[in-house]
Amino acid sequence: MYLGAIEAGGTKFVLAVGNEKGDILEKKVIPTEHPDITIHKILAFFDGKGIERIGIGGFGPIDINDSSPTYGKLQKTPKTDWVDYPLGAKLKDGLNIPVIIDTDVNVAAMSEAKWGNAKDVDSCLYITVGTGIGAGAYFQGKTLKGLSHSEMGHIKVRRHPDDTYAGTCPYHGDCLEGIAAGPSLEKRWGKKGVELADDPKVWEMEAFYLAQALTNYIYILSPERIIMGGGVMKQKQLFPLIRKNVLEMLNGYVSSPYLTEKEIDHYIVSPGLTDEAGVKGALYLAMQ
Amino acid sequence: MYLGAIEAGGTKFVLAVGNEKGDILEKKVIPTEHPDITIHKILAFFDGKGIERIGIGGFGPIDINDSSPTYGKLQKTPKTDWVDYPLGAKLKDGLNIPVIIDTDVNVAAMSEAKWGNAKDVDSCLYITVGTGIGAGAYFQGKTLKGLSHSEMGHIKVRRHPDDTYAGTCPYHGDCLEGIAAGPSLEKRWGKKGVELADDPKVWEMEAFYLAQALTNYIYILSPERIIMGGGVMKQKQLFPLIRKNVLEMLNGYVSSPYLTEKEIDHYIVSPGLTDEAGVKGALYLAMQ
Repeated sequence: MYLGAIEAGGTKFVLAVGNEKGDILEKKVIPTEHPDITIHKILAFFDGKGIERIGIGGFGPIDINDSSPTYGKLQKTPKTDWVDYPLGAKLKDGLNIPVIIDTDVNVAAMSEAKWGNAKDVDSCLYITVGTGIGAGAYFQGKTLKGLSHSEMGHIKVRRHPDDTYAGTCPYHGDCLEGIAAGPSLEKRWGKKGVELADDPKVWEMEAFYLAQALTNYIYILSPERIIMGGGVMKQKQLFPLIRKNVLEMLNGYVSSPYLTEKEIDHYIVSPGLTDEAGVKGALYLAMQ
Repeated sequence: MYLGAIEAGGTKFVLAVGNEKGDILEKKVIPTEHPDITIHKILAFFDGKGIERIGIGGFGPIDINDSSPTYGKLQKTPKTDWVDYPLGAKLKDGLNIPVIIDTDVNVAAMSEAKWGNAKDVDSCLYITVGTGIGAGAYFQGKTLKGLSHSEMGHIKVRRHPDDTYAGTCPYHGDCLEGIAAGPSLEKRWGKKGVELADDPKVWEMEAFYLAQALTNYIYILSPERIIMGGGVMKQKQLFPLIRKNVLEMLNGYVSSPYLTEKEIDHYIVSPGLTDEAGVKGALYLAMQ
């Protein structure tokens, strides 16, 4: 059986044909343009490929409630051309097959749980720290959704005493994304993250913010593994700083062998899948 | 079929016999004493009643991982007599029937989802604000658990500018529970919550803290309803203050008709079940 998979991102779309075993058989990357152009390219790629279902891991906010009349519709994304674009409906009409949609981060969490660094446990949280901060949770065989999808990057954490930066979030100013995503690093310190690699105070502050968020996620969700990806997390010096801060903040309250100095290196980890995490997660959606 | 149910609390245990339809047929309340005394009373109550399974909603922290060798064992509870007490194993050995254990707040969330104020939706969060602050989440037919159970009362929120109180939590000082549970109200203001009912600044500060927590829970979990119970929430003036603060803090970011001035009264609500929520939730555990 052939299945379709789309990783729909703000800068590029990854299109793939795979099979029910999770193998990617053919792949194409296209830039994210005006939705009328992009949808045309997507339909052209899948035309005649014989796919029976298609899974999409989408940028958002996007309606992922499959009983909603606007399932698969983009919401108030900063990509203004895409606001209110009915991506799910357009694909369903154009391809005439079932379309299954979840968020990019939920799909990445699912992909890590199936094939990546959480394949030995039953639940995980996947966090990306890049242009924005987002996270997806996979628990008890499903991604977590309710009223809407998670928007974990928008929680507020306490400010670092040395930080006076106002924050970049247009909705919340100094929420986590507003003070710890890539753009805030550049605006606070006057240089891009990669150019700040040797400045310890930058990463101590960043770890202080991200560790507070992780501590809250642990108290609220209690995932069995936390996977951190995205451009900012390529600064590998962040990992030991975050782990140390998380243990200090939890202060021994949550009983788990993972939450100890000895084991935390195996609890807060990098992604196991690299470039294909998104599109493989979308394929896994179609497999279910 | 007869089923057993126990609501195990720090001050009292509610014991009940029910049936597979969720009816409570017989009930007894006993004080929480030394575990050796309490277990004896529990076994005596259920002796000869012909129950086939028993569900327990327990105070904690408690091991609720059913594949763990210490399933049903209390952990570092402030009730020192009960630390490391193997409640689950003692009941299993004494009654010789399957024992199903979850936390008191998870069981309350389940109970509200089945019979209470969340019976029309698929997910909910139940929060109790009393001697401590705890919350349970019910999603996709199950309570949320992973590495351990949730400890949502221990997240940190930003301090109110007028609040200099250090906080009561022995682990985290000024975490949410440390600054917003009943004992912190009494220590900060010098009187019990009930005696402060007419002082608006008390409830404005309390609502500021609880609304921050709810906003974080919404971003992270996205529940379809939030139910707030416990002694502090008997101050009904808190509800409109919390709802107003939550809407201001979200600032329109999460798209949902519930998160509007018109509908939020139906989103953040009181419990639908009163005295029997815990024991009925425990019965529902045994029914599954």
